[in-house]
Amino acid sequence: MRCAENDIVALDASDPLAPARNAFDLPENLIYLDGNSLGPPSRATLSAVATTMNSEWREDLIRSWNTADWIGLPKRCGQKIAKLIGVQRDEVIVCDSVSVNIFKLASALLAKSSGAIVVHADEFPTDAYIAIGLANQIGADFRRIEETAGPEALNETDGIIIKSLVHYKTAAVANISDWEKAARQKGVSIIWDLSHAAGALDLNLAVDGAEFAVGCGYKYLNGGPGAPAFIFVKKERASDLTQPLSGWMGHKKPFDFSDDYAPADGIERFLCGTPSIISMTALNAALDIFDDHSMAAIEKKARGLSDLFAEGCAELGLAPDAPPAEERRGAHLCFAHDSAYEIVQTLIKRDVIGDFRTPNFMRFGFSPLFLRYQDVSNAVSILKKILDTEEWRKPEYAMRAKVT
Amino acid sequence: MRCAENDIVALDASDPLAPARNAFDLPENLIYLDGNSLGPPSRATLSAVATTMNSEWREDLIRSWNTADWIGLPKRCGQKIAKLIGVQRDEVIVCDSVSVNIFKLASALLAKSSGAIVVHADEFPTDAYIAIGLANQIGADFRRIEETAGPEALNETDGIIIKSLVHYKTAAVANISDWEKAARQKGVSIIWDLSHAAGALDLNLAVDGAEFAVGCGYKYLNGGPGAPAFIFVKKERASDLTQPLSGWMGHKKPFDFSDDYAPADGIERFLCGTPSIISMTALNAALDIFDDHSMAAIEKKARGLSDLFAEGCAELGLAPDAPPAEERRGAHLCFAHDSAYEIVQTLIKRDVIGDFRTPNFMRFGFSPLFLRYQDVSNAVSILKKILDTEEWRKPEYAMRAKVT
Repeated sequence: MRCAENDIVALDASDPLAPARNAFDLPENLIYLDGNSLGPPSRATLSAVATTMNSEWREDLIRSWNTADWIGLPKRCGQKIAKLIGVQRDEVIVCDSVSVNIFKLASALLAKSSGAIVVHADEFPTDAYIAIGLANQIGADFRRIEETAGPEALNETDGIIIKSLVHYKTAAVANISDWEKAARQKGVSIIWDLSHAAGALDLNLAVDGAEFAVGCGYKYLNGGPGAPAFIFVKKERASDLTQPLSGWMGHKKPFDFSDDYAPADGIERFLCGTPSIISMTALNAALDIFDDHSMAAIEKKARGLSDLFAEGCAELGLAPDAPPAEERRGAHLCFAHDSAYEIVQTLIKRDVIGDFRTPNFMRFGFSPLFLRYQDVSNAVSILKKILDTEEWRKPEYAMRAKVT
Repeated sequence: MRCAENDIVALDASDPLAPARNAFDLPENLIYLDGNSLGPPSRATLSAVATTMNSEWREDLIRSWNTADWIGLPKRCGQKIAKLIGVQRDEVIVCDSVSVNIFKLASALLAKSSGAIVVHADEFPTDAYIAIGLANQIGADFRRIEETAGPEALNETDGIIIKSLVHYKTAAVANISDWEKAARQKGVSIIWDLSHAAGALDLNLAVDGAEFAVGCGYKYLNGGPGAPAFIFVKKERASDLTQPLSGWMGHKKPFDFSDDYAPADGIERFLCGTPSIISMTALNAALDIFDDHSMAAIEKKARGLSDLFAEGCAELGLAPDAPPAEERRGAHLCFAHDSAYEIVQTLIKRDVIGDFRTPNFMRFGFSPLFLRYQDVSNAVSILKKILDTEEWRKPEYAMRAKVT
């Protein structure tokens, strides 16, 4: 049942996260339902990068490694993310990409196990591709389990599973605790990919027993296009693990320039090359907004926004490919439609930005920090009009090469 | 023999690269002899990053992957670097860090060879560390050869050697052609690390027979702190090689989101995760200055500047740890001195920025795009004064934790 206009106004009026929108500088009239693909910059982010460029780099040059503590940025950034995912502050570090970080963790864990690498069918592609690449490189077995397989699918011959916490299409959320219990019984390690979860869900990885995770900086964390990723390793496990991307930044004493490699004691051993300071500055500044708002409130509003959208879509005859309504869900919704591409293009033309995903999915994300209930309601109205008028049939919206 | 002041003025007056300095916006009175560690931003770089932040990201958001061709940035950036190192434009791509890129290449080559991984003693640390990490991961042999060993040190039981073209201390330049000939006879592949060479030397890798290389974006290419690195693979070899960091950006059709991995045809198979757009924008803009100047002129002036510095230092009783004067040399000079740390700190206080490198080296870089002969002459005068007065003995310059 769709909300009346009065109700929408009331929802925004009583929204404890409403002030967060002012931290961003979004284009007027744009309804941005793609913060799950690329979060927008906060004003603080724009300002921080300008400072890094014009002051730290331009004026202080090499000295900024010390004076601006560039060298400490991967740790400082990691500490902020640790808080968001419910682990200790020195258990997370920011570096490289999700793909590279999966490789580091998977490789380190398989150095201690002869088991197979497991991924679900329809797992986020890069997770599976890295698993395949590593399996081919070291001669490990690679095993794919059903998309909907539960923890019982794990075998004692498995070594690791690389698993999205939130599915990139359905937004189904795995039960970390159930998976960890089953995995431990079978001697399997789980690498959680938090890319579609961090910054959108209220996560408590330590409580739930997770030991290893990676995640993306450019989605709900709003760190900018291709922002560095993060990596979490439970403190007690870090020193047991040796990862092969043993670049100088993961060395115990990187500036001793010794010939021999000695890994740093804790999470820093998962660093590799020189950190990408300009991009990391953006992520570091973007994370500060989370200081002002609880992840519980953020998850609650994300659900409220996406429920509102789903209810509106139901009246248009569109049902998301999502878990049952009573289950926990990530902050995006996917709808299969034969003309998904054309509809998404038409929405973009009407200033409602969503994603097309092959072969036939429309995906919309509901970042609760900058979206209003009114935005979501308006998006439904615009979608209704496009469907009613069949505007999407215009030749200008026809399928062509779509790159992201 | 040190130049007279008139000669210095004449050198700058007749310098064909003199106009390039205006492309930068260096702090007044600073003599920056550390462009070999972190190049300064050009005005175009500062402007390009501001545009990416405030317009492409803030206004166009996700659409900029297409409209600003973010997706093509690794290739476009690679094309510019290809020109600087003397290879074909579609043989270079920009991505990740030097360390990660060495791992990709080394691993891909060792998938086709059971030979050892070879590095020189006193090789740049991260190159050796990655070699060790990979050797441990896949069970390959790791072999260290003498620092000064020539191509005859290669054995038929070797698989690859990871080798800096320009040594990070001595600036000695390897003869690519000699090494490649010997390597081919023994069935060894060479991964050239161009970090201290690209943007400073006139390179012709294709002519010299090199097939594989990596290099750094933040030194003489001025791409910014922790700028993305590059990777070169000769076209005929790329499709034979499978690298294990097979993230989605190296897929033949990344946006098909298929479960199976199929590598892209050419150099793009060496991409891994989502490119770091903000940092890469800086590098991309920084590279444009090379359009206006030949690498031959750049190498010639770098030699002129460093010769001038070496001559001045000779009068102070300081001789660089460098190859004989008649040999080719990179654009930096290293001097061993028991009080190297204190002297470098004192120079920094006097606005002459150089590097300290353990255990007892002062290192100075001579980036020819923004340095004037007068700067180098002034640096020598300041150094002379510091040594004459023994100012460096003041307690404020004493050794303390130095991070870069």
